[in-house]
Amino acid sequence: MSMLMVGSVALDSIKTPFGDKKDILGGSAVYASVSASFYTDVKLVAVVGKDFPEEHVKFLKSRNINLDGLQINSGQTFRWSGYYEYDMNQAHTLDTKLNVLGTFNAQIPEKFRNSEYVLLANLDPELQLKVIEQLKAPKLIAMDTMNFWIENKRDALREVIKKVDVVLMNDAELRQFMETPNLPVAARRLLELGAKSVIIKKGEHGSLFFSKDDHFSAPSYPQEEFRDPTGAGDSFAGGFMGYLAKTNNVSKKNIRQAIILGSVMASFNVEDFSLSRLKRLAHHEIVERFQAIKRFSHFEEVQLVHQ
Amino acid sequence: MSMLMVGSVALDSIKTPFGDKKDILGGSAVYASVSASFYTDVKLVAVVGKDFPEEHVKFLKSRNINLDGLQINSGQTFRWSGYYEYDMNQAHTLDTKLNVLGTFNAQIPEKFRNSEYVLLANLDPELQLKVIEQLKAPKLIAMDTMNFWIENKRDALREVIKKVDVVLMNDAELRQFMETPNLPVAARRLLELGAKSVIIKKGEHGSLFFSKDDHFSAPSYPQEEFRDPTGAGDSFAGGFMGYLAKTNNVSKKNIRQAIILGSVMASFNVEDFSLSRLKRLAHHEIVERFQAIKRFSHFEEVQLVHQ
Repeated sequence: MSMLMVGSVALDSIKTPFGDKKDILGGSAVYASVSASFYTDVKLVAVVGKDFPEEHVKFLKSRNINLDGLQINSGQTFRWSGYYEYDMNQAHTLDTKLNVLGTFNAQIPEKFRNSEYVLLANLDPELQLKVIEQLKAPKLIAMDTMNFWIENKRDALREVIKKVDVVLMNDAELRQFMETPNLPVAARRLLELGAKSVIIKKGEHGSLFFSKDDHFSAPSYPQEEFRDPTGAGDSFAGGFMGYLAKTNNVSKKNIRQAIILGSVMASFNVEDFSLSRLKRLAHHEIVERFQAIKRFSHFEEVQLVHQ
Repeated sequence: MSMLMVGSVALDSIKTPFGDKKDILGGSAVYASVSASFYTDVKLVAVVGKDFPEEHVKFLKSRNINLDGLQINSGQTFRWSGYYEYDMNQAHTLDTKLNVLGTFNAQIPEKFRNSEYVLLANLDPELQLKVIEQLKAPKLIAMDTMNFWIENKRDALREVIKKVDVVLMNDAELRQFMETPNLPVAARRLLELGAKSVIIKKGEHGSLFFSKDDHFSAPSYPQEEFRDPTGAGDSFAGGFMGYLAKTNNVSKKNIRQAIILGSVMASFNVEDFSLSRLKRLAHHEIVERFQAIKRFSHFEEVQLVHQ
């Protein structure tokens, strides 16, 4: 199956200990779409301004991403600028200019409304709700969010969470939202609020999946090359959803494999700025990294005889 | 095989969000010995003062821990007091009274010097070196340490690291020691310094093993009951070494199983203060938790066909 993707397209200015880049391609929907495009066809719904460079449009098309839902409005493209310190765990925002994103209407083209696999990347939860209302036959909806919406649109966020199948949050966001430092407790509380499942993204520490009847702990790839964490969570979400859409199978087994593939895509993405690493990513590298993670986390059943 | 254990015995005063306890049984060697005692016979070398309560001696003996190397010196037992805040990630020391530990000579009884499996729990690295010099036929030596020695006895610590088979550190300690936030880079640097292998204990995020030719990422148990983190690392070390000594097998397969069993012991230990949880731990609970961790981390090979 193909997959519907709604989120932001941005021009980012980013400084990390490994470089300083101005107006580079970014945005939650871009990272997630390009990542998903390694698995399935993606239909992108987003907005850019008249200033959005043609080379980026060409690149997205070259990844078989359908841009019929990409609105080009008068005004400037959404811009984010920020920096990361030495440990690169936390993004520090310097400036956010919503520009055309401020009036984005999240209108889904009629021909996209029967999409079965839908990823709502980080976006105002009121817009995420509006997208959900337009869907005719969703099979799996996943959503991502950020601390800004947790602090400012808590009620809308709670509504979205009840209506989707997979909630993606990072550890700090889930702790903040559920008001406890204990992640398994936080996950349980989120399920009690009506979430069907949650994936907690923990960066270098891997990720955790919780649903009413399953729990999965996914390791991270031991990452020595690490230049820019921007888009890691979105690349994860794209790989995760892209694989589920491709296989059209949401069994427990497939969800676990999709989580590992999400980690694989995120691990490549952080190796360079913007989409640079994904642009030169080869299919065999994905397979090799998946196999490496499997090898790095396998252990055998133990036979214990009581002392 | 039995296992030789050298470290501290303490009376701790601990405050966490879940309670406030005075002069309870603790110390690196106690947590590690009791944890290891679920797998093999332990020979303990440590020091206590005349004030050390007889009930604790009885308890250690009841766990088949050989106390012939427990020196009872005139003076008071080592005391540590500290507290943990809401997130319980970091121990805050209020007071440390070395007492008899300040003149501990780390003298290994002659009959213990042919021990093959040796765990050097957190202790002055100069004493750890002294223990190593007394060993006649070590097969596997593991050592633990803490930030105090990293800051104050860096050279001695580097010597110990070259002479042991497994270095146990938590993530913050390894980052501090190798001066990088990136754990895989830090692990590589430690191996370059001459360490044969390292286990990085990451608390709620599991643990990582690195050697020249292997890497293993171990998940943590999803812990909702969490009252006191004191002794978690020592319980881990005890379970890890106890299993290797019991099986007398240091293959890659056994090291991975031992790491999971270390995690299992730590996960029980944090459920209550002092040794309370390990005192009432049943053998079948260990097996069940090992199996749960295996179930929670298993995933299957993926068949990816290029788009």
